Amino acid sequence: MTAKRPFDRAADSLRTVTLETGVNRYAEGSCLVAFGHTRVLVTASVEERVPPFLRGRGQGWVTAEYGMLPRATHTRGRREASEGKQSGRTQEIQRLIGRSLRAVVDMAALGERQISLDCDVIQADGGTRTAAITGAWVALRQATDLLVQEGMIARSPLLDQVAAVSCGVCQGVPVLDLEYEEDSNAEADANFVLTGAGDIVEIQATGEKRGFTRAEFEALFGLAEKGIGELFALQRAAAAA
Amino acid sequence: MTAKRPFDRAADSLRTVTLETGVNRYAEGSCLVAFGHTRVLVTASVEERVPPFLRGRGQGWVTAEYGMLPRATHTRGRREASEGKQSGRTQEIQRLIGRSLRAVVDMAALGERQISLDCDVIQADGGTRTAAITGAWVALRQATDLLVQEGMIARSPLLDQVAAVSCGVCQGVPVLDLEYEEDSNAEADANFVLTGAGDIVEIQATGEKRGFTRAEFEALFGLAEKGIGELFALQRAAAAA
Amino acid sequence: MTAKRPFDRAADSLRTVTLETGVNRYAEGSCLVAFGHTRVLVTASVEERVPPFLRGRGQGWVTAEYGMLPRATHTRGRREASEGKQSGRTQEIQRLIGRSLRAVVDMAALGERQISLDCDVIQADGGTRTAAITGAWVALRQATDLLVQEGMIARSPLLDQVAAVSCGVCQGVPVLDLEYEEDSNAEADANFVLTGAGDIVEIQATGEKRGFTRAEFEALFGLAEKGIGELFALQRAAAAA
Amino acid sequence: MTAKRPFDRAADSLRTVTLETGVNRYAEGSCLVAFGHTRVLVTASVEERVPPFLRGRGQGWVTAEYGMLPRATHTRGRREASEGKQSGRTQEIQRLIGRSLRAVVDMAALGERQISLDCDVIQADGGTRTAAITGAWVALRQATDLLVQEGMIARSPLLDQVAAVSCGVCQGVPVLDLEYEEDSNAEADANFVLTGAGDIVEIQATGEKRGFTRAEFEALFGLAEKGIGELFALQRAAAAA
Amino acid sequence: MTAKRPFDRAADSLRTVTLETGVNRYAEGSCLVAFGHTRVLVTASVEERVPPFLRGRGQGWVTAEYGMLPRATHTRGRREASEGKQSGRTQEIQRLIGRSLRAVVDMAALGERQISLDCDVIQADGGTRTAAITGAWVALRQATDLLVQEGMIARSPLLDQVAAVSCGVCQGVPVLDLEYEEDSNAEADANFVLTGAGDIVEIQATGEKRGFTRAEFEALFGLAEKGIGELFALQRAAAAA
Amino acid sequence: MTAKRPFDRAADSLRTVTLETGVNRYAEGSCLVAFGHTRVLVTASVEERVPPFLRGRGQGWVTAEYGMLPRATHTRGRREASEGKQSGRTQEIQRLIGRSLRAVVDMAALGERQISLDCDVIQADGGTRTAAITGAWVALRQATDLLVQEGMIARSPLLDQVAAVSCGVCQGVPVLDLEYEEDSNAEADANFVLTGAGDIVEIQATGEKRGFTRAEFEALFGLAEKGIGELFALQRAAAAA
Repeated sequence: MTAKRPFDRAADSLRTVTLETGVNRYAEGSCLVAFGHTRVLVTASVEERVPPFLRGRGQGWVTAEYGMLPRATHTRGRREASEGKQSGRTQEIQRLIGRSLRAVVDMAALGERQISLDCDVIQADGGTRTAAITGAWVALRQATDLLVQEGMIARSPLLDQVAAVSCGVCQGVPVLDLEYEEDSNAEADANFVLTGAGDIVEIQATGEKRGFTRAEFEALFGLAEKGIGELFALQRAAAAA
Repeated sequence: MTAKRPFDRAADSLRTVTLETGVNRYAEGSCLVAFGHTRVLVTASVEERVPPFLRGRGQGWVTAEYGMLPRATHTRGRREASEGKQSGRTQEIQRLIGRSLRAVVDMAALGERQISLDCDVIQADGGTRTAAITGAWVALRQATDLLVQEGMIARSPLLDQVAAVSCGVCQGVPVLDLEYEEDSNAEADANFVLTGAGDIVEIQATGEKRGFTRAEFEALFGLAEKGIGELFALQRAAAAA
Repeated sequence: MTAKRPFDRAADSLRTVTLETGVNRYAEGSCLVAFGHTRVLVTASVEERVPPFLRGRGQGWVTAEYGMLPRATHTRGRREASEGKQSGRTQEIQRLIGRSLRAVVDMAALGERQISLDCDVIQADGGTRTAAITGAWVALRQATDLLVQEGMIARSPLLDQVAAVSCGVCQGVPVLDLEYEEDSNAEADANFVLTGAGDIVEIQATGEKRGFTRAEFEALFGLAEKGIGELFALQRAAAAA
Repeated sequence: MTAKRPFDRAADSLRTVTLETGVNRYAEGSCLVAFGHTRVLVTASVEERVPPFLRGRGQGWVTAEYGMLPRATHTRGRREASEGKQSGRTQEIQRLIGRSLRAVVDMAALGERQISLDCDVIQADGGTRTAAITGAWVALRQATDLLVQEGMIARSPLLDQVAAVSCGVCQGVPVLDLEYEEDSNAEADANFVLTGAGDIVEIQATGEKRGFTRAEFEALFGLAEKGIGELFALQRAAAAA
Repeated sequence: MTAKRPFDRAADSLRTVTLETGVNRYAEGSCLVAFGHTRVLVTASVEERVPPFLRGRGQGWVTAEYGMLPRATHTRGRREASEGKQSGRTQEIQRLIGRSLRAVVDMAALGERQISLDCDVIQADGGTRTAAITGAWVALRQATDLLVQEGMIARSPLLDQVAAVSCGVCQGVPVLDLEYEEDSNAEADANFVLTGAGDIVEIQATGEKRGFTRAEFEALFGLAEKGIGELFALQRAAAAA
Repeated sequence: MTAKRPFDRAADSLRTVTLETGVNRYAEGSCLVAFGHTRVLVTASVEERVPPFLRGRGQGWVTAEYGMLPRATHTRGRREASEGKQSGRTQEIQRLIGRSLRAVVDMAALGERQISLDCDVIQADGGTRTAAITGAWVALRQATDLLVQEGMIARSPLLDQVAAVSCGVCQGVPVLDLEYEEDSNAEADANFVLTGAGDIVEIQATGEKRGFTRAEFEALFGLAEKGIGELFALQRAAAAA
């Protein structure tokens, strides 16, 4: 059971992934993450305030916002700011990014401050939300390291790594890291967010054209574990740079 | 490894589930679904039009909207209509319900018409989105049966059943069908949407307080398969009533 | 001068009216009110805060919100939450409900807290606003009785009963308690809100197809007094249950 | 039973009322109406289109919009355009104005066109909605006369006059045409909209501080009939000017 | 090089300009400004508060809002309040008015209070924004004089006069104070805002149909200096009235 | 009269300006423009439709939208999409960009299609609107060249170049191309938009802290002419690349 992927990529291969740091001179952390043609610019901004529901409780917060430039895609989309609202898809994605990062942060160790992760898609070719999570960890790592360096906090509030990848069943074959053309024709796809310890932070699996079997799901899970392992190594390299 | 559940419910037991039909005299299909204290009123409305992106293509559409009455919960929430927008959570849920039902509908057999599933939570005690999906299938079944009876379409566009349940890890123990108090203290939880054939339509798994292991996830999956099997029987009984 | 009403109802007869309490396990008061096929679910929620313009003045507030489920009507309407705003009609109705209930409440006796009356129309067959007012009094009575029982306030802030009914001129004949089909064909209609003492809280009279004469108006007023008298008895029975 | 009114006005006296036409060089009809210090600028705009629900039905429509300049009142209010929405009060008032004028228009005679009545309050001292209705009739009369003069329609679609006034119970005394200070202290008030034939178009009566008796209501009704009779004469004079 | 202007106006002539004060009985300052058929009602409202970014800094603020009645123009425009937002044009204009007036106010001398200038266009025939600025200075002068009279501040915070006019190139000829028909056909136009001392507060020059030469621009500048000189005299006369 | 500029830049020197093309693989034209640390990503998108007011008139349209990533600035700003509206500043800027580019386009030669210029600020250090205009011309040139190459149109609709720069008076000295720190302390500043032929498209001059003299204005104009001349050379080089 084989399917020819674009550029002859193997079923269990990631696209070329790069994590470039230092791409914004003002932000406490920043990362331009690329998965093939998908490019997401992430900044981490530290603010000395927390949302109202946390005030005075001695702990911090990590949140995320997601956006896509109108011409990040093949045809121009509408600008959400001029539409007057964020789409359901945008809100769903930014909620996912925020939850994923919060899963590896010790909020008490962060202290009463907020880190906002802005994830803006410069160019989209599938997998923007998982690229955003993967890059956001790098930006968050930089921002928290900076807080430690500056003596704002005693130790890093980062408990572990977190990274994400999408997988899908295309023409019956489970494959890793879908690009846009694969994604839009996949029978089913799933986004996996895992920690460095191998624990599940989030799984979002959807049968797009048909339901998929438990066996197929297990195959996707295996691919994700392999791919995310590679992403963890890239994250560590970027953080050490 | 045991945890005492409210009302001594077994780890693999559903709450009392009822699916009452005929609860709205105007709608083409309706179902008041209860999972314990959670109660969701679902109506299926047939409209002889489709969204713009489908016009003239000879196929139908199924969509869903979700709402919660302000006092469905322990403390009064704000009314989304007076807020001027639906929350990200609401949009995420109604998108999930719509996708789940579309997975079992043959859109060409439905013809160029739309069925809207309105899912309004009258009282919330955990699991409102999975209750909504389970009840929406019953309302949708009634509406499509009516279209067949009235000779609007030749055969039912419903390809299979679909139902959903939430599971979670509470104090280390995987349990089925969380009620609110369990849900808000769970370490991790997951919503499963499966078809009558046993295929996966959607999985949304989230580590709330910590990541969870693949073994825990597999245990939740098993519980979901058991619970959803029971829901399928209740759906068939309601549809036959 | 006679007109045949649906189901041979007499010109001065109410539809079957029921006021069912205890329909929400969280709210401090609740009432499912039915006038024939019209059904409105009312909850009364006590909150220990008042609107900004009343803070620190030692008195309370009663407010109301009104909504209609999309398929409460013969054909599906749009959901106001997804529209992004409440219609002028909705705002007009909820302002009326709030004013009507405030007319019988001693705000100083209520203390610095707010009671919100949420009136959600489950099914609409004419007279939803008057049904809402009539049921809201029952829910409010329960909520205020609870405050007294729990020792939060020394005595009931409820000064009197308040109830409402619609009347109209149909084919030249003044009739009580219009159902939808009558309402949409009435030459003129009026909503009356009266206190137990017989005083006027609100009258909203509108010539829909033609102006109406002062004599016709007086006839409607008489019908309303009769009908509201019967509603007061039903309210007392529901409150005593 | 007497109460001293500001400027020793008699209980059954209108304030000085003026209806000045020709105040906008572009509008098909216009009227600056003053009731004492209350001043409302009304324009009638003819447009050769009707709302979607009337298209192709060979009949016209009359609608109204209402606004208040931010400093029309003693203290500056917020500008609704910058707030991003019209208040419930504004919507309620403009719906009332529209219904009132439609009551005296033969929509078939108007033909498939719309007349919009814009009522903008330049200065507010009570009774803005009733002043707006009274002035809007004059502007509408001018616009419909113009349509007849220009041969667009064969005969005037105006069936009768319509005018409005507010009355209230102040310190126990029924009085005509409340100014702001009276209005804000009235025990009860009512707006009456009547036709030249003496028929009721709208009554909106509200017990502000207490319910009011049927006898008080009848007294207000009598005052309104007297005052509106005087307004009809002023309207005819303005239309003849 | 000559072009015939409407009403044979000379290229360097203003339309008839009037500045009428005392047109609102509640506002601390008010001015009805007319440039030919263009009429703008300006009120100045003093409020004992400042925007959040200025609190506690011992200085004041001057801000402006701009609106246009729907039938101020030849054909009826949409009401921004019912549209739910101010247009980009409206926001641009009110920002310009605010900046222009702030340029001649000593904010420390004003003290911690805000003056809001509401500029509402009653009738539009070109040059509404420059008329608004010119009239707003008069209203602001009245309001600040009143603060001095009432002993709220020791001396006037007004440092100088400010006035504005539009100029344009019509059929190749530079002309002063465009009316609507000229403005909509101009090749280029420019708004000049100058102080009594002759300094530039704002210039907004736009090539509408083609770019314009520096020589043309200089000619417009000269016309503006002449016209604004005349406006300053009218402002002083109005302020002295 | 000299003032030390950051990095010892001469009063009449531009910052380092780069215009990088080919930065988006989907857009018909794209340019990443940098003026020192200011970086704006511009894409030109061709769409085979025009706005409603131009339909069927055989001519095209050019429009622009502007946005700023939340952390483009020293401290994080709010995301306009989540705010639910574009600020007045944003709308003012995007209107300016659109007008500036339209000034050099022959709309009939473009044919009935629209080109949208999306200008997104990645990093802001002053002069974002003028950088956007300068880069947008390059992206527009690419998009129109592509239309010619593909035979969609017979000849280029671009009539000339257009570029822009800001100038200001800082500590009494007129200087070219302000960076953020200069801009926020300038006594006055002005944005100039000129064509290749030297004609004025737009001038927006504002006295920020004080009015400025006509002599100062003329000095700024001279600096702008010099700087824009250099920008034209860079645009031609980028277009030829």
